[in-house]
Amino acid sequence: MLGSIEAGGTKFVCAISDFNLNIIDHTTIDTDEPNSTLKKVFDFFSNHTIKSLGLGCFGPIDINIQSPNYGCITSTPKLAWRNFNILKALSDNISVPIALNTDVNVAAYAEYHKGAAINTNNCIYLTIGTGIGGGIIINKKIIDSRHHPELGHIFIQKREDDHYIGNCPYHKHCLEGLAAGPAIEKRWNMKPIAIPDTHNAWELEAYYLAQAIVNYTLTLSPDIIILGGGIMHKSFLLPMIKSQVLSILNGYFPIDNIEQYIVLPKLGDKAGIIGGLLLAKELLQA
Amino acid sequence: MLGSIEAGGTKFVCAISDFNLNIIDHTTIDTDEPNSTLKKVFDFFSNHTIKSLGLGCFGPIDINIQSPNYGCITSTPKLAWRNFNILKALSDNISVPIALNTDVNVAAYAEYHKGAAINTNNCIYLTIGTGIGGGIIINKKIIDSRHHPELGHIFIQKREDDHYIGNCPYHKHCLEGLAAGPAIEKRWNMKPIAIPDTHNAWELEAYYLAQAIVNYTLTLSPDIIILGGGIMHKSFLLPMIKSQVLSILNGYFPIDNIEQYIVLPKLGDKAGIIGGLLLAKELLQA
Repeated sequence: MLGSIEAGGTKFVCAISDFNLNIIDHTTIDTDEPNSTLKKVFDFFSNHTIKSLGLGCFGPIDINIQSPNYGCITSTPKLAWRNFNILKALSDNISVPIALNTDVNVAAYAEYHKGAAINTNNCIYLTIGTGIGGGIIINKKIIDSRHHPELGHIFIQKREDDHYIGNCPYHKHCLEGLAAGPAIEKRWNMKPIAIPDTHNAWELEAYYLAQAIVNYTLTLSPDIIILGGGIMHKSFLLPMIKSQVLSILNGYFPIDNIEQYIVLPKLGDKAGIIGGLLLAKELLQA
Repeated sequence: MLGSIEAGGTKFVCAISDFNLNIIDHTTIDTDEPNSTLKKVFDFFSNHTIKSLGLGCFGPIDINIQSPNYGCITSTPKLAWRNFNILKALSDNISVPIALNTDVNVAAYAEYHKGAAINTNNCIYLTIGTGIGGGIIINKKIIDSRHHPELGHIFIQKREDDHYIGNCPYHKHCLEGLAAGPAIEKRWNMKPIAIPDTHNAWELEAYYLAQAIVNYTLTLSPDIIILGGGIMHKSFLLPMIKSQVLSILNGYFPIDNIEQYIVLPKLGDKAGIIGGLLLAKELLQA
């Protein structure tokens, strides 16, 4: 059996599968402070015998296997989890090999293997919700860099008629500070879900996300960019973003087929768990 | 013997080396229209017997080996070279294996093997001059993506007191449109070389370059970023850029040692030629 944990800021999803990744049991746990949350995680896994475990965790988290702080959640606004070594806590209680990466890198990996990015070499998975985060697959593998990607915090050009100052506690008007759910809500004094489809808010949102996609494209030129997260449930956004990407690029950079280049996830909210199982399976094959 | 060509918009440098990369002969040719320029290139190589050739070429250029237009220079402002297949022209006259990449990817590769980025896994080489271009090394290799990086054309946040509209013919106010040499000249009505060291121009320049470095960092988290090109000859710029990078990141992203993270090239204007020789040598080892 394989184990998988998708450790998110609002909930932890745990699952068990066979070696073909068929899910046999799963549970969802509200994210509370570390000890009580992990107690429920251990309870779930104590009912099963697993050979290995894949963990996709919210960040920022130290995923550098050579670092003394490997497995430590770092500058998160969730104070109870700051400087908490989730990998060590898990290892102390579940004595199987554990593979760790960020929630979004793991989701990207699942979409690459089983979802929207099958048959590509390089892909980016971006989630736009209460925050903006991204995972990167390069040469068929999760990007192996000093620190995991922080795609939500890049700087883009603020539109001149946008007088909202941005709400990222670190960078004010970075992408997340201008375009994540809470920024939309504060700018327009409405929850995103309540903003009408024809409201100007969405054109601005599409413009900011398109600029970010243009920046990722000019830097990495992935084969595909997958857009997930709650904000993308507004189905009219995707074509608006595509149109703005082409408009901003203005013919400079070749996008062969915009319809196939910017897409929605295929695995929906299962990407994290499936990605964790993939990592767990690879541990056994290493 | 190995051959190398650094094909730039103002000059072509050609060189011959032994298999230890000791340069034995070299020449510099002004870039004119393709046929007359390449005639001089062929004349140089006709005096030598080489086993393979590495070419670093200005772009945009199609470096996708599977593409029908592999080797073709694409949307360059140099009209005589637009849609010219430089690889085919070379192959028709120099019958050895030829490795092709962009001038900046090749320079990055040289700095990785022989220069400032030795002992790293991932690095970015940025050149800031009449344009802004960048090369990327990932996992010890030149990035293998659908299209080569176009790091100069990403979008950053324009400073509110900067009223210059930008001069990129494609994107107006992208990084290159705001921060390359011609943009500096047009904004301040002075050639960059003539602008005093204490002029406000440089603080703004450092701010724009720092934002770009922050964006590359948050996306790729390279081990090192190398800044080359004519603008970086202003030696006071490097510490200004480092300081602004730390200020913009605001503690969110771990930079272990800024002094070692953002550096000048070690190979100077030899990077392109050395990188070409490295590619030529690898062709023989493949």
